Amino acid sequence: MSPDAGASAGADVAFGVDIGGTKVLGVALGTSDRLVAEARVATPAPGRDGEDLGRAVADAVAAVVAQLDATLAPGVVPHQGAPAIGVGAPGMVDRQGRLRFAPNLPQAHGLDWSHLIGDRLGGRTVLIENDANFAVLAEHRLGAAQGYHHVMMVTLGTGIGGGLVVDGRVQVGGNGFAGEIGHMVVDPAGPACPCGRHGCWERYASGSGLGVLAREAALAGKLPKVARGDPESVRGEDVSAAALAGDLDARRVVEEVGWWVGFGLANLTCVLDPECFVLGGGLMSAGDLLLDAARAAYGELVEGGERRPPTAIVPASFGERAGAVGAALAARHGGLW
Amino acid sequence: MSPDAGASAGADVAFGVDIGGTKVLGVALGTSDRLVAEARVATPAPGRDGEDLGRAVADAVAAVVAQLDATLAPGVVPHQGAPAIGVGAPGMVDRQGRLRFAPNLPQAHGLDWSHLIGDRLGGRTVLIENDANFAVLAEHRLGAAQGYHHVMMVTLGTGIGGGLVVDGRVQVGGNGFAGEIGHMVVDPAGPACPCGRHGCWERYASGSGLGVLAREAALAGKLPKVARGDPESVRGEDVSAAALAGDLDARRVVEEVGWWVGFGLANLTCVLDPECFVLGGGLMSAGDLLLDAARAAYGELVEGGERRPPTAIVPASFGERAGAVGAALAARHGGLW
Repeated sequence: MSPDAGASAGADVAFGVDIGGTKVLGVALGTSDRLVAEARVATPAPGRDGEDLGRAVADAVAAVVAQLDATLAPGVVPHQGAPAIGVGAPGMVDRQGRLRFAPNLPQAHGLDWSHLIGDRLGGRTVLIENDANFAVLAEHRLGAAQGYHHVMMVTLGTGIGGGLVVDGRVQVGGNGFAGEIGHMVVDPAGPACPCGRHGCWERYASGSGLGVLAREAALAGKLPKVARGDPESVRGEDVSAAALAGDLDARRVVEEVGWWVGFGLANLTCVLDPECFVLGGGLMSAGDLLLDAARAAYGELVEGGERRPPTAIVPASFGERAGAVGAALAARHGGLW
Repeated sequence: MSPDAGASAGADVAFGVDIGGTKVLGVALGTSDRLVAEARVATPAPGRDGEDLGRAVADAVAAVVAQLDATLAPGVVPHQGAPAIGVGAPGMVDRQGRLRFAPNLPQAHGLDWSHLIGDRLGGRTVLIENDANFAVLAEHRLGAAQGYHHVMMVTLGTGIGGGLVVDGRVQVGGNGFAGEIGHMVVDPAGPACPCGRHGCWERYASGSGLGVLAREAALAGKLPKVARGDPESVRGEDVSAAALAGDLDARRVVEEVGWWVGFGLANLTCVLDPECFVLGGGLMSAGDLLLDAARAAYGELVEGGERRPPTAIVPASFGERAGAVGAALAARHGGLW
């Protein structure tokens, strides 16, 4: 096979995978970075050796390949020698592709995912990185933060992830752990966090935070329609849905979470002074209600207030796909460029 | 005069000024960036038009020039066409050299210092920048953080200032306001801050924080030797001195401030993952007592704990001169390079 043949259809497709708390999302980008295939598999229940996670990633890639085979790009099979596959993971991924610490994915601590996943993909190179670092790459290069030089991506999911663009480039810090913003402590006397400390920002401003506030409200006799007699079982997503449907108590809970989001953004502005915050993750299903509350709190709390130019606070263009799309982009370009 | 004559002795000297809450410090750097002169004048009491501040800066520069004249570099006079003079200021300095907001220097809000100071220096160009941004430049290029690529400078003075080196370069954010780390809120229910919010980090971990904790301890009947019957008049520096002299109550107060320092550094690591923190400012007169307490709290609180490589936490090499030295370096190189 000539080098040119090797650079045909298959070489134009880039693969990215995002490992989330509940699902593993695989995507393929075609020419002009267009999304041409995607597939989801469930994130496996905790296991000690990580084999299950490696298998889920391989399954997601296989499902994407099957879609490509069935549609526009038959014969695109990940093989040795082809470009890397990008894989985003929650938590602290070091520069050697090892997951050092992931409060919301404890079964994966210490795993060498580069090998674990690479072995299941026929030895193909795996470019592993924190999920939000990939997400900010996608949003900065192709999405909501195009044209800005200083950007902070904030993924509001089960926890809170973060990715930074500083002076036009994605930055990951000295060990690759920058952007672990969900674990900024905002109240040393606050509730316990799976990370081992108390009062982390993600206890208040994430999907988990919404759930906690919702249950507190339900136990106080509010949210009767959502609780249906069982306050302990109230889930964050039910409250978001009720708020969007007009339930006033539910709106107040979502607005309180939005206040905490804006509060944390104001803290981040003290440190990094971004021009633009991009908000992604499942919590954004609460839409403008959350976004408006976050913007209002930010405007009230940010240092310097009206003496500083306004900061853009916008939803992610790629929604829940930002991490996987960024992973594929990085795979295509050989890293966070 | 030939161009060569213009590039003689005088052109090898770079001038830097740092405007602090209590004093204005001017320095001159000679060949090989060696400190060849320095002078201090008191920071003037608040005035509405800022003329007093402009005059103090000009006085500091004149005093440095007089020293040079008297010693090794006669005839070095700041004049039009010569390199800029660097001037560091506390607070939010925008990219046009305007001080937008300075909680600890309220008389200077909104002043166009570039013009105010430049006019007093015979129209010489003034390169104005946040003081801690200059300080991190000095420490990174010549001081305690040489060789690191990701550095956070933390100046623990009346308030707390910050400067960032990301991937080898000083970064100032979208508006020039990055590093305003003293105003990260660490407890929304905490004490009021001059910035208008509550519970800012600098309420706990700065010289002001030390003073507050010391007065609380004195009012509770501790620190009798420091208080001498007047608990309300206890000052932070007296407590530092007593702690260094072995007073156990005073040690406990300094250690509590050190805990808050380490707490904030752990939060900053979540965001930026620096390899090295450089601590400067007047609070560092408490020495190893403060530093050891900060390191211990950091080790206990940082996300990932022992799963991550250790972070260097070191005192500034240039001590209180870091800002002025960095200002002179930036003047020599035409900016934060």
